[in-house]
Amino acid sequence: MLEQLNLPVSVEASEAAVLIRRAHREDLQSIMWLLSDDAVSAGRGDEARDEDEPAYRTALDRIVGDPGNELVVVVDQTDKIVGTLQLTLIPGMARRGSTRLLVEAVRVASSQRSSGIGTALMGWVVDQAAHELGAPLVQLTSDAARSDAHRFYRRLGFIDSHVGFKYHVAPTP
Amino acid sequence: MLEQLNLPVSVEASEAAVLIRRAHREDLQSIMWLLSDDAVSAGRGDEARDEDEPAYRTALDRIVGDPGNELVVVVDQTDKIVGTLQLTLIPGMARRGSTRLLVEAVRVASSQRSSGIGTALMGWVVDQAAHELGAPLVQLTSDAARSDAHRFYRRLGFIDSHVGFKYHVAPTP
Repeated sequence: MLEQLNLPVSVEASEAAVLIRRAHREDLQSIMWLLSDDAVSAGRGDEARDEDEPAYRTALDRIVGDPGNELVVVVDQTDKIVGTLQLTLIPGMARRGSTRLLVEAVRVASSQRSSGIGTALMGWVVDQAAHELGAPLVQLTSDAARSDAHRFYRRLGFIDSHVGFKYHVAPTP
Repeated sequence: MLEQLNLPVSVEASEAAVLIRRAHREDLQSIMWLLSDDAVSAGRGDEARDEDEPAYRTALDRIVGDPGNELVVVVDQTDKIVGTLQLTLIPGMARRGSTRLLVEAVRVASSQRSSGIGTALMGWVVDQAAHELGAPLVQLTSDAARSDAHRFYRRLGFIDSHVGFKYHVAPTP
């Protein structure tokens, strides 16, 4: 719960205004569906399966209860959830003690892509970093396979200056 | 303060054992020096200047006081700080509710590179993710200019599956 965030807020997408608000426990199914509505995510196991619901619910509760994290959803004028992302505010030593705003799990419903929702949502993120959170750096990684997303982020002014590495471990219970 | 971390701990580098421990407020100068002892960081303004000390101190205090973050230092047998990194534990929805361990600002003193300290330190990170933190995913980004670091991470088993984007904002006071 990043309390400084200015939410809920209405933002203009290219076709209509949408509402950005904090995610609630009741949004679980919609967020699971949004993750599954993406080929890269689905290929990693995000398939909105009933048997995975307890793991997603535990994660949602942890994010909502964590002061350094916020899960956000975008709601259209029919009250349907059409987008989501997660924000993490990270104090840091590098770059003369710069705080970073990490953006994870950006998803817009496949039926709504190119509707301006992603642009409006990311514009809000950058604005919040600058004016509410005191974070000079916004950062994210995007799967190398997502070439459309890379063009989108470059167009917004993001610079692909880094290589993103992942290491998969098998946690013990 | 990631309380679950098993620290302090002695680990074997190739030449001698080193100690990994939590950073204290008294380590400020050493960490500033480690950041400046790196051409990429120095090029971004991390030059260990006296006038920047208050900003670094504020950042160090924020990290030490944050339950989702930990700043770690590596100490050699002469009690000199020869390495540092920051860990952030991030609950998340994607990948069926996977918690991520983000690694930032990995630095080893230039005089100590190829001494096995980085390998020992990152080995400890992966072990903590698996056995203490329940985090199936360890992730980091590395500046595209750091080709030696990329080889190092690949050798450890990290996969460069992502593109890392940054956006610089000018925060208002």
